[in-house]
Amino acid sequence: MSDKRTELEQLGEFGLIDQLTKKFETKNPETLFGIGDDAAVLEGKEDKVRLVSTDMLLEGIHFNLMYMPLKHLGYKAVSVNVSDLCAMNGKAEQITVSLAVSNRFPVEALEELYEGIRAACEHYKVDLIGGDTTSSVSGLILSISVIGTASKKDVVYRSGAKENDLLVVSGDLGGAYMGLQVLEREKEVFKANPNIQPDLDGHDYILQRQLKPEARVDVIDILKELEVVPTSMIDISDGLASEVLHLCKASGVGCHVYDEKLPIDAATSTTALDFNINPNTAAMNGGEDYELLFTIGQSDYEKVASNPNFTVIGHITHQNDGMYLIDRNGAAVELKAQGWNHFNKED
Amino acid sequence: MSDKRTELEQLGEFGLIDQLTKKFETKNPETLFGIGDDAAVLEGKEDKVRLVSTDMLLEGIHFNLMYMPLKHLGYKAVSVNVSDLCAMNGKAEQITVSLAVSNRFPVEALEELYEGIRAACEHYKVDLIGGDTTSSVSGLILSISVIGTASKKDVVYRSGAKENDLLVVSGDLGGAYMGLQVLEREKEVFKANPNIQPDLDGHDYILQRQLKPEARVDVIDILKELEVVPTSMIDISDGLASEVLHLCKASGVGCHVYDEKLPIDAATSTTALDFNINPNTAAMNGGEDYELLFTIGQSDYEKVASNPNFTVIGHITHQNDGMYLIDRNGAAVELKAQGWNHFNKED
Repeated sequence: MSDKRTELEQLGEFGLIDQLTKKFETKNPETLFGIGDDAAVLEGKEDKVRLVSTDMLLEGIHFNLMYMPLKHLGYKAVSVNVSDLCAMNGKAEQITVSLAVSNRFPVEALEELYEGIRAACEHYKVDLIGGDTTSSVSGLILSISVIGTASKKDVVYRSGAKENDLLVVSGDLGGAYMGLQVLEREKEVFKANPNIQPDLDGHDYILQRQLKPEARVDVIDILKELEVVPTSMIDISDGLASEVLHLCKASGVGCHVYDEKLPIDAATSTTALDFNINPNTAAMNGGEDYELLFTIGQSDYEKVASNPNFTVIGHITHQNDGMYLIDRNGAAVELKAQGWNHFNKED
Repeated sequence: MSDKRTELEQLGEFGLIDQLTKKFETKNPETLFGIGDDAAVLEGKEDKVRLVSTDMLLEGIHFNLMYMPLKHLGYKAVSVNVSDLCAMNGKAEQITVSLAVSNRFPVEALEELYEGIRAACEHYKVDLIGGDTTSSVSGLILSISVIGTASKKDVVYRSGAKENDLLVVSGDLGGAYMGLQVLEREKEVFKANPNIQPDLDGHDYILQRQLKPEARVDVIDILKELEVVPTSMIDISDGLASEVLHLCKASGVGCHVYDEKLPIDAATSTTALDFNINPNTAAMNGGEDYELLFTIGQSDYEKVASNPNFTVIGHITHQNDGMYLIDRNGAAVELKAQGWNHFNKED
């Protein structure tokens, strides 16, 4: 090792991954696509491809057991992984779950966690096929890998967006982030006075968005019914701004996203205003909505725009035109990712 | 959650896995075998199956960075996973690597780790196809999943051993454990006096067994050349005794293992005696050798016994006869797993 010391936060998560993996080459003919999308793509049976993705969730970084019930955590951990395969226009079929836990957890707590995992497996029709279980020095760590399939002709990468394509999102945005704000507020109230009951009334929708997100497997079915194959796709885990940038960077294009088009539920807006947060900021930078962001050719506009699950939020431009958020006065602000950077010291 | 509190160490690792996963059923027709072997088995292309396995390695539990260089750790983490697919009579083709690290690691340290992972990928002809990178509250956590293939007719499970089959191991045993003892001793010396250089001279073989174990992919090729398909197989990660018990339990059989047949390298024996450890104890309970333990039909005896990579160490008996280690005087001692139990409080 040289004497040089580069701190992790100088690179950030995506810079670090690039730095660590740049010397790796894939050599196996069965490996169709390796690092750099929501899932890796391997040769499958007949006209199928096999999809593989993996996620690691750590207590104190990705979840807080003070307000995240273990059953919900199990469900969410599976949803997050299933969502990665949706982002490839594919379906999850199997998962492995590795678990590290400290002795502070009794067996019963882990049974709760696995109840959530099992509920998600039933819901998504996914088989638990393996894993690893070990002790940890501190806290709970979950590592899930998901395996699934897509038909070879329908698999969608981040890199296929073309100039003049339309930018579309499923569902609505910012809810999971506002749910987290409510939970964080009640945690602080509880810390100050443990006798006060948490005030979560009226926040059902945004709490569910945070605590029990659903992977949009239904969107994959709807796209198939509509006979629409997106030109590119990604799931929204780190916030819309971050995902739009990933998609444009991978495709070598620019974009215009229209502020006033962002789909935001009334419950999200109301809570955001209560917290003095601009609802659009929650939608653009909040993350954890696990909706799908995709691009379609103009010829598919009618099919998609008429479906209540989808909102056209902008269009793809030439790479040289840059990536912009356009407000209702027509003013353009350059898009910047404000997504989570777990390596920041203040996290 | 009920009020009952069962401590993790009451169940142990394997009991806990059983408890947590007993309610899960596999439903997908593509899932040929789920939990309970070295790898899960999925439908593959044509006459192949797809194999999937996963392992999690935590600093302070599975490795100690005081004497495990990061490059070696990377190499070993890949070997351990590749070994799981060898145990199915298959070959690894792809891996995913998820990493959680605290800020105490500079980028350069992780580059060392990935150098080791890359060296192993080159050696085993495996592609790195994905992963996840995040920060950790404490220490380094690695979670690796491996994907590979086997031909459908040659895939070997733990459950196929039959009465009168012969019990065979590849290579030699106990070396990795004695290497660990030397490293632990030198760590204590260093802690007492940091000016004393570690005395590792003459321990090259056992240190390599501990720090840079190789998955026995060559054994898979040799078995193919010999036209031997084992009736059952498992890799030796937790010590021979533990693995023999797994194999017999999965197959519903008993066994006799002969003490004097255990293959032990001279370097392992010498060091064991220096440490007042019975070399056979190191071989039976040491673990981390990543050799293969398998059973063959009697008709394959000549082919296997004449190959220098293999040692016949016993034979399979009826389930009712139990599982015994037979010493050179013919005395039988019941086999008990002394493998690692990471949930023991003293660990």
